[in-house]
Amino acid sequence: MTITTAFIGLGAMGFPMAAHLARHAQATGGRALVWNRTRERAVAHAAQYGTTAADLQDCAQAEVLFSCLPTSAQVDEVIDHMGAHLRPGTVWVDCTSGHPDSARRQREHLSARGVSFLDAPVSGGTSGAQAGTLTVMVGGPTAEVDSVRTQLAFAGKVIHVGNTGAGFAVKAINNVLLAVNLWAAGEGLAVLGRHGVNVGAALEVINASSGRSNASENLIGQRVLTREFPVTFTLGLLAKDAGIALDVVESVKGSAPVLAQTLGLYRAAAQIIGENEDHSAALQLIERMNAQEIK
Amino acid sequence: MTITTAFIGLGAMGFPMAAHLARHAQATGGRALVWNRTRERAVAHAAQYGTTAADLQDCAQAEVLFSCLPTSAQVDEVIDHMGAHLRPGTVWVDCTSGHPDSARRQREHLSARGVSFLDAPVSGGTSGAQAGTLTVMVGGPTAEVDSVRTQLAFAGKVIHVGNTGAGFAVKAINNVLLAVNLWAAGEGLAVLGRHGVNVGAALEVINASSGRSNASENLIGQRVLTREFPVTFTLGLLAKDAGIALDVVESVKGSAPVLAQTLGLYRAAAQIIGENEDHSAALQLIERMNAQEIK
Amino acid sequence: MTITTAFIGLGAMGFPMAAHLARHAQATGGRALVWNRTRERAVAHAAQYGTTAADLQDCAQAEVLFSCLPTSAQVDEVIDHMGAHLRPGTVWVDCTSGHPDSARRQREHLSARGVSFLDAPVSGGTSGAQAGTLTVMVGGPTAEVDSVRTQLAFAGKVIHVGNTGAGFAVKAINNVLLAVNLWAAGEGLAVLGRHGVNVGAALEVINASSGRSNASENLIGQRVLTREFPVTFTLGLLAKDAGIALDVVESVKGSAPVLAQTLGLYRAAAQIIGENEDHSAALQLIERMNAQEIK
Amino acid sequence: MTITTAFIGLGAMGFPMAAHLARHAQATGGRALVWNRTRERAVAHAAQYGTTAADLQDCAQAEVLFSCLPTSAQVDEVIDHMGAHLRPGTVWVDCTSGHPDSARRQREHLSARGVSFLDAPVSGGTSGAQAGTLTVMVGGPTAEVDSVRTQLAFAGKVIHVGNTGAGFAVKAINNVLLAVNLWAAGEGLAVLGRHGVNVGAALEVINASSGRSNASENLIGQRVLTREFPVTFTLGLLAKDAGIALDVVESVKGSAPVLAQTLGLYRAAAQIIGENEDHSAALQLIERMNAQEIK
Repeated sequence: MTITTAFIGLGAMGFPMAAHLARHAQATGGRALVWNRTRERAVAHAAQYGTTAADLQDCAQAEVLFSCLPTSAQVDEVIDHMGAHLRPGTVWVDCTSGHPDSARRQREHLSARGVSFLDAPVSGGTSGAQAGTLTVMVGGPTAEVDSVRTQLAFAGKVIHVGNTGAGFAVKAINNVLLAVNLWAAGEGLAVLGRHGVNVGAALEVINASSGRSNASENLIGQRVLTREFPVTFTLGLLAKDAGIALDVVESVKGSAPVLAQTLGLYRAAAQIIGENEDHSAALQLIERMNAQEIK
Repeated sequence: MTITTAFIGLGAMGFPMAAHLARHAQATGGRALVWNRTRERAVAHAAQYGTTAADLQDCAQAEVLFSCLPTSAQVDEVIDHMGAHLRPGTVWVDCTSGHPDSARRQREHLSARGVSFLDAPVSGGTSGAQAGTLTVMVGGPTAEVDSVRTQLAFAGKVIHVGNTGAGFAVKAINNVLLAVNLWAAGEGLAVLGRHGVNVGAALEVINASSGRSNASENLIGQRVLTREFPVTFTLGLLAKDAGIALDVVESVKGSAPVLAQTLGLYRAAAQIIGENEDHSAALQLIERMNAQEIK
Repeated sequence: MTITTAFIGLGAMGFPMAAHLARHAQATGGRALVWNRTRERAVAHAAQYGTTAADLQDCAQAEVLFSCLPTSAQVDEVIDHMGAHLRPGTVWVDCTSGHPDSARRQREHLSARGVSFLDAPVSGGTSGAQAGTLTVMVGGPTAEVDSVRTQLAFAGKVIHVGNTGAGFAVKAINNVLLAVNLWAAGEGLAVLGRHGVNVGAALEVINASSGRSNASENLIGQRVLTREFPVTFTLGLLAKDAGIALDVVESVKGSAPVLAQTLGLYRAAAQIIGENEDHSAALQLIERMNAQEIK
Repeated sequence: MTITTAFIGLGAMGFPMAAHLARHAQATGGRALVWNRTRERAVAHAAQYGTTAADLQDCAQAEVLFSCLPTSAQVDEVIDHMGAHLRPGTVWVDCTSGHPDSARRQREHLSARGVSFLDAPVSGGTSGAQAGTLTVMVGGPTAEVDSVRTQLAFAGKVIHVGNTGAGFAVKAINNVLLAVNLWAAGEGLAVLGRHGVNVGAALEVINASSGRSNASENLIGQRVLTREFPVTFTLGLLAKDAGIALDVVESVKGSAPVLAQTLGLYRAAAQIIGENEDHSAALQLIERMNAQEIK
């Protein structure tokens, strides 16, 4: 079956994700539309990958419509703009790191137009997006999830985690775990540094031992010890995701004192260090708290 | 050079570690003594690996003396028992997950008898001990560390992390990071469970995503979701190690609010769930806090 | 001016509060209606204080309508029941420990019927309610707040704290501070107890020193050291209020790591000790965490 | 009985405390010696109150010897200086906010010279010191405590809290409770401020309600809302005391996650805001964490 897909939001993640949709369309005889708030970026994508830089009204007619935007609020805006142009039967696959409450609201809102909504955030970073090996965590009814599996051309793994909102909830919890693991490693290394321990050697030990995490293995060595803190995922966005995680905790009246404290510390880091810095720069707040560089 | 080694403490870790010393001794024409508080275990080791079940006085004459005991307090007791029998020139390599303050005290105490002391805790668990691939993190003067590198027959990797006490400090920080990463994952999964999310699927996502850690990858699936909680490393010992980590924080007047909070929660878990349970059973306290099984 | 007031919710607080309205009505020639879900309690109030046990339709015609219910959800239900019976010009004064979001929604909803809504929770406990010395913290427009000041016959002090929702926000923050102060004192005394210190003497010192709080002065001696834990304000309700406080934090993306952690611990206490126990029984969780009675 | 007392350490607390000893000596025919590291201050005290500015050797001969110094380390130094000059039979009453471990060590050390040691820290601030209404919390054997009760001329209340070290332990716990109560109130008020609530009105409500504490009643209004932060008790010293409190927790392997977290935050505040600022200036860190002044 040849179908038309549209991809809304060509950011650091969306740009390479949409490229995989383009390849898939070319292989199957389908069409791949793209849209971006700054239209130049869509035009560049079209030039590079053979997609079509469309307007939102055209995108609204796609059979599968992807979005990947900074927050659920921007998705709401796009939905509002498309409004009556939406085509009954379309499946909207939202890859934003969104809010479970928004997912439920958006699904209900879109169902009035005959459009179904799946929350389908991704993990794997920009390298996974380029390689087409992203993990997609999907919330929604099983049949609808299964109906779009073959369209997720950017995915290495698609995991159906529960009903509407579950995809966003799992993404938020994953990201707050990243936040906790990163922060805790920062506290530990700062203290070892004050102790006169060789921090690089200590990190090497931890990465060969039980205390290791993705954060210790793939962030601290490359971003903190090098003092580079390259901005690929901002502190503000990680704090936002940790905030969604706490909303998930609150929505079930859960008890999660460590997640809750850590959110508070990331909010503080975003204020004091800067929300546009890389998320690894949260450890600069730990450095100030301890008057000790982590290096 | 043919030398005599002695290994004090044939527990779950020490027993296979000493086996590697035995093989090394056989290959180099040396001798390998072993001692254990319960002598039967030393006799069994001798029968199985060709070591010699010696008494503490004989062990005291070894050129390299290893210890691997539950806490620094037991090492102190062994040092006291050996007393005047210790041989000037011996290097004592303590693989206990000990206390940095004890290391400094023990080194000073032993130096009066011409014995040098290196804190050299290991990571890699019982499987790493059997395979001889343990990571050894060593604190002490460089020349002394280098002098025993070839004797660490159970090591896959030897990392010199700093002066006396640094090995114990790094081990304690590694273990408190394990504690934090494990606890945080437990909070997140319990809350997702209350939310009706498929916890197994959520864990699969996290383990393919940025929030993963050794704890999420190697403990929660095997020990918690299975409801087995097999006892390989007790909650009491992990709480003890987290306590040493906090002592490391305190000794430099550091600021580590997440590590400090987590220690409090593990102490609580050890009291409420039981200090002889497996360390993964700490998550049973989270389950009670949330009236939600993690499964 | 003789006016009619109605009081909805004759609980431990509402019953004596409504008595003050009755006295005020008698003094000024007004009428005081009362309503309670269990009608017997309203009848008893009428017999005791000369109020009128009315139905909700009659209450809806009052010029000033008070409510004091367990949560904002119950207030919503009463509003729904009154519906079209509400009288344009009525001022609804909600003394519930409610939610700021609910206040804004309720005010908007009621304004469509010409009814104004003020969030006006109280503090001072049942003794303050009986004495008529409650502190009332009111959110809403100044003119409307001023218009009902003379009607707040149960108040010792009326403080206008901000716009709609501010009253509930302040009440929630006050209660989470109670929660923090109580919990921290519990941790401190449990630890001193383990240390062999005379806990009663330590509490006497603290209550004469800088670490004292309303919790240490008026709760721990009377409720915890006596082992009585009399149920006047439940653990479940305090955890609910602490949850509203965290919602207040989240609504402004605030950083409040200590408040956030404490909420998690109260949720845990409500699950493990029991939500229907007195709020002071939260310290029984600390006792289990430390294997140490606070006495 | 006419006796000689000596007072070591004429700081903000010690100066007025020693004045009460002087009055007591004059009333009973005794002598009151004073000593201060900066001798001018002792001379000034003598001129003002009729005490004698003595050297440490003379002070060592006093029957009751008081000390009130910044930390136990300074007390150790004074003990070392007095050494052989100490008089068997002297009772040393240490009013420093010291460390329980130091108390036990100092008592044992002094007992070899026939000198007994009581840990007897005080609370009530400089105003209590001037008024002679300090609360003294004493650790040590009952008979020894009773033997000096009449000499504590600066006390409004003397409370025997337990064995040696108990006085310091209670003082440390009191001060960490001050730290927690102050910090929590700061978090709450900062968040209310972001919410647009009138912070002064909110504080008035809290101070009339269940969330009040000495910190909310006597510090925040006078020191924070006024933006004055007058330095009477430094942030560094409060962080030091909170550190002793955590040592008390650790010495009994206690579980006190809120106290532990709060210590970490005060350490951070001392680094980021400045250890020589007033302790109330810890709330300036909360202000930065929330980009919100508390006013």
